[in-house]
Amino acid sequence: MSARGDVAHIGHVELLSPKPEESLVFFEEVLGMEREAEAGSSVYLRGFGDYERYSLKLTESPTSGLGHVALRASSDEALQRRVAALQRSGRGTAWTQGDLGHGPAFRFTDPDGRQFEIYYETERYRPPPELVPAMLNQQQRRTGRGIGVRRIEHVNFVSPDVRACRLFLERELGYRSLEIIELDDGREYGAWLTATVQGHEIIYILEPLPVRGRLHHVAFWVDTREEVLRAADLLQDHGIFIEAGPAKHTPIHSFYLYVYEPGGNRIEVTSGGYLVFDPDPEGTTVWRESQYKASRAWGREFPPSFDTYATPPFEAQPTDEQES
Amino acid sequence: MSARGDVAHIGHVELLSPKPEESLVFFEEVLGMEREAEAGSSVYLRGFGDYERYSLKLTESPTSGLGHVALRASSDEALQRRVAALQRSGRGTAWTQGDLGHGPAFRFTDPDGRQFEIYYETERYRPPPELVPAMLNQQQRRTGRGIGVRRIEHVNFVSPDVRACRLFLERELGYRSLEIIELDDGREYGAWLTATVQGHEIIYILEPLPVRGRLHHVAFWVDTREEVLRAADLLQDHGIFIEAGPAKHTPIHSFYLYVYEPGGNRIEVTSGGYLVFDPDPEGTTVWRESQYKASRAWGREFPPSFDTYATPPFEAQPTDEQES
Amino acid sequence: MSARGDVAHIGHVELLSPKPEESLVFFEEVLGMEREAEAGSSVYLRGFGDYERYSLKLTESPTSGLGHVALRASSDEALQRRVAALQRSGRGTAWTQGDLGHGPAFRFTDPDGRQFEIYYETERYRPPPELVPAMLNQQQRRTGRGIGVRRIEHVNFVSPDVRACRLFLERELGYRSLEIIELDDGREYGAWLTATVQGHEIIYILEPLPVRGRLHHVAFWVDTREEVLRAADLLQDHGIFIEAGPAKHTPIHSFYLYVYEPGGNRIEVTSGGYLVFDPDPEGTTVWRESQYKASRAWGREFPPSFDTYATPPFEAQPTDEQES
Amino acid sequence: MSARGDVAHIGHVELLSPKPEESLVFFEEVLGMEREAEAGSSVYLRGFGDYERYSLKLTESPTSGLGHVALRASSDEALQRRVAALQRSGRGTAWTQGDLGHGPAFRFTDPDGRQFEIYYETERYRPPPELVPAMLNQQQRRTGRGIGVRRIEHVNFVSPDVRACRLFLERELGYRSLEIIELDDGREYGAWLTATVQGHEIIYILEPLPVRGRLHHVAFWVDTREEVLRAADLLQDHGIFIEAGPAKHTPIHSFYLYVYEPGGNRIEVTSGGYLVFDPDPEGTTVWRESQYKASRAWGREFPPSFDTYATPPFEAQPTDEQES
Repeated sequence: MSARGDVAHIGHVELLSPKPEESLVFFEEVLGMEREAEAGSSVYLRGFGDYERYSLKLTESPTSGLGHVALRASSDEALQRRVAALQRSGRGTAWTQGDLGHGPAFRFTDPDGRQFEIYYETERYRPPPELVPAMLNQQQRRTGRGIGVRRIEHVNFVSPDVRACRLFLERELGYRSLEIIELDDGREYGAWLTATVQGHEIIYILEPLPVRGRLHHVAFWVDTREEVLRAADLLQDHGIFIEAGPAKHTPIHSFYLYVYEPGGNRIEVTSGGYLVFDPDPEGTTVWRESQYKASRAWGREFPPSFDTYATPPFEAQPTDEQES
Repeated sequence: MSARGDVAHIGHVELLSPKPEESLVFFEEVLGMEREAEAGSSVYLRGFGDYERYSLKLTESPTSGLGHVALRASSDEALQRRVAALQRSGRGTAWTQGDLGHGPAFRFTDPDGRQFEIYYETERYRPPPELVPAMLNQQQRRTGRGIGVRRIEHVNFVSPDVRACRLFLERELGYRSLEIIELDDGREYGAWLTATVQGHEIIYILEPLPVRGRLHHVAFWVDTREEVLRAADLLQDHGIFIEAGPAKHTPIHSFYLYVYEPGGNRIEVTSGGYLVFDPDPEGTTVWRESQYKASRAWGREFPPSFDTYATPPFEAQPTDEQES
Repeated sequence: MSARGDVAHIGHVELLSPKPEESLVFFEEVLGMEREAEAGSSVYLRGFGDYERYSLKLTESPTSGLGHVALRASSDEALQRRVAALQRSGRGTAWTQGDLGHGPAFRFTDPDGRQFEIYYETERYRPPPELVPAMLNQQQRRTGRGIGVRRIEHVNFVSPDVRACRLFLERELGYRSLEIIELDDGREYGAWLTATVQGHEIIYILEPLPVRGRLHHVAFWVDTREEVLRAADLLQDHGIFIEAGPAKHTPIHSFYLYVYEPGGNRIEVTSGGYLVFDPDPEGTTVWRESQYKASRAWGREFPPSFDTYATPPFEAQPTDEQES
Repeated sequence: MSARGDVAHIGHVELLSPKPEESLVFFEEVLGMEREAEAGSSVYLRGFGDYERYSLKLTESPTSGLGHVALRASSDEALQRRVAALQRSGRGTAWTQGDLGHGPAFRFTDPDGRQFEIYYETERYRPPPELVPAMLNQQQRRTGRGIGVRRIEHVNFVSPDVRACRLFLERELGYRSLEIIELDDGREYGAWLTATVQGHEIIYILEPLPVRGRLHHVAFWVDTREEVLRAADLLQDHGIFIEAGPAKHTPIHSFYLYVYEPGGNRIEVTSGGYLVFDPDPEGTTVWRESQYKASRAWGREFPPSFDTYATPPFEAQPTDEQES
């Protein structure tokens, strides 16, 4: 049967940083996230809208990049269905006893070998007295500190084989592809996948270098485009280089802003974009290379670094036999 | 098995107007919708983001109010499952051969006797030359005329028995309730239901008068709160009375603005609000009457008309024996 | 000769608070102002856009209300001209040696006996290392703390004789009236005065109680309407009652939000509104009472407290013989 | 005596177009201006906030560029003072009997030979029935058509001698320079001048080609940055190339968007930016070349065309001996 609906959303992303203290200042003071817990060499951070305890796990590491991405299943039955499918796919690894804030998680890898896990049992956030919100339907009060992100919105990976990764998420996890960019040479340049009607949740774009498993960026949501513009002013006053934006994305039409956190990982502050209620495959926009190049939103291009920079840095990677 | 996911979204709403010409001017010139087709005493209108041909059917009628609301199923199998469930529920009416732009539809009523239908086959919108958009992932170009709504966002009904209507949509159609307001006398004052992660799609609030089946409002989406503010300026310059807003709703936190279209139906221009990714029942906010009254968003109350005005007008209704 | 142009802008406003510590937390943590200096029972605060050292002097006092408002002259010659005119008017008091951050100031009173002063020599702000901004044309970096007001935008007084106060500012200080509301009984309900093209800088509205010299509110500027909406969320989460707004003002069309700071003084967070480049008297909008009541912006009324609450509280005032 | 305050604002700008019909469609349908009058080969257009009849005179011409810019004096005495000064300066040309909507105007040229005029007597706008606004303090109702600009905000010229032009406007017309960019070779790259507290009204930037008198762009104001973003979507759907933006300017911090109207003239849609209340020369920001290059707003650069494209096209100009 269809896997559609078995994955509810990204629960959290683990980011690796060689400069954990500076990275923590960035996420707490600049993005305005809350420090929910600490354990070992990790700090757990949350946006003001997270119903779970955290959505970002920041871990000290010799290099930057992704630790893992954790998906929350929509029910225990959905979790069992996905685990069975992942085991059949040969990409399943093993069950873990879970982590701070959530229950047992099944580990697996995408075709690039990237670490994923899926879990269902979770711990709902309970704010401390100083963060109790004004209204019952808020998870946490707004502190007014820094940019003030609500939640993680999506994670964007770079892959030498976008199509293989896309098909894996579609088949085994029930993701839908809302937009796909096809190059004239037949390869896919990018795929925008979602588990809901939200424009994007997991994105793969083409890795031009002979390496697998790198992270392009993690995106955090603010409620308005004006907050992205405000973020740009705050980031500049913090002395943080703005790589691209604020501007409008061509796929999904979301409003973006890109910077590098001190650990080197690219971070997006985003808002807007459209929801896709259309349940049909015809709802997927498939761009030919020429169509994509000919009609960029507002005519905007990205700087060259956008196509080459990812984490961990290329130098830090073992050469990949399959590519050489 | 769970009905969750079988309904994709509201396909269209039929509004009745005793002043069809004036109502048409409102939807075309003020809201900025496009006239996609006309048939009999109806005009079919669309927002610039609709992937189907239309989302509003405006029909001449002796009085105002709702004609029917049409739900699109997420697949043909989903449609068959819902029809079977509706037939079992005793609320199923009959199959119709469909209407302009969509295929066979199964008619049914909610506990108030309100007309619903559910269908799957649909006709995808193809813009005429003058409305071909700049980018492949747009349905239609923006005309820049009037407010410029993207799509219907939700429909809000008034019912003497909110709980019964809520449970019907949950059980037979797979809707989730994101927020519920419970009065001290045990009745439900309101229920906010969705078929997706979007904050609201069908809302029921309490009908204080001895009548069933009335419409509180139909809401149209604009992409930003600033566009709601712009809409307020345009509406005032059009001489249209603004009943409430622009302001922030307590449930869902969406940004609202209410007016009456010339036919008498209340129309909301809305944006913002949160998405609910939480798949668990614990994710539903249940407000006690006192909690709701004590923490209104920005401390805002509605004018008295908001609790009593609905369409068709009360005077036009036969008295309801069940209520007397 | 014309006094037009002799006054450059409001330099600062002194607010009195019976709860100085709580008031300081409000201005620093909630409005996001910076503490620039402290002296005696006063704290001097600044918005991020102030080119002078401060724009708000917060002074401990047995009751709330205005201490004084200080106007900066556009040149030393302009200062001498205004002082001569004020002395002729009989409302001049005396020269003071100035205060922290500015030179000699000439004290005078408006027809209500309210304390004003005018000065020219000033000390330009030099940010400490942690507040040095990214660009040469910024006065100070944005901290991202709280609402983040740029500057004081206007001060609004209540007076039993709006016309007398308006004429005094026009004749002796060169202010222009951009909008005037005339009641059917011949009195003026309100007058919006400016020394520049900015919509309002000093406002008088009618005092309904037998008292003189009270303060209606002090307004602080944020750069966008979206920041006013963001402010409403932050204020509610801080547990601060929002008296009115966010909404659009009828005169000037500015976007407003009103709260009471802990000391009791009403504070507005504002943005938007139009600039008036028209140099002619015909540019003044004179509203008849009926016209004003018939066309409020977005149809919005103020709550009753808006017409009666001012500081210091009425109870704290000696009865005013001239009124009894 | 000081000329400060004698010029009230730019009254109107005359733009030349070799494609008058297409240009008219752009200003009416895309920018949303109103056609107020037509005479000879000119059409007079207005923004919804203009208190005079028009702010743009669009004239058919063999080539693009500026016809003239007209400044409104703040009084008849101010007009006489400026005319006397201009005659002394040797740049005065002659009185004209005025044009549609305004009285006698004195013609003069800036150091580049660009056509200016200054007038005082004017005709106040009276809206036709269909454009009567909702409120007394509006000049005209909003039509909701297209981008909907309020007024002309500034005009930007390119000059081989920015300093000479800046000093001419300061000395003879009382303009203030708010920002100046000085190149290492001693020349000025740009000067931002204003007659009020508004960030910019007349701008000169360096002309790199051997030609005098060209126009860089004319800017039209919208009330919010969100309206600039909306404009970008409308412009793209109209098939109009966006040369730069939406983004934030380094001088003045205004929010910009640049396109070319069909006649070839560069048009900016702008909002935001700061007001300068500081009356002192110290209030002028003087950027060294290195400072300006090192701290661009949001790190944004302009495309090469921004430094070379101006109207009329270079090819259409007689070579300039002084430059060769």
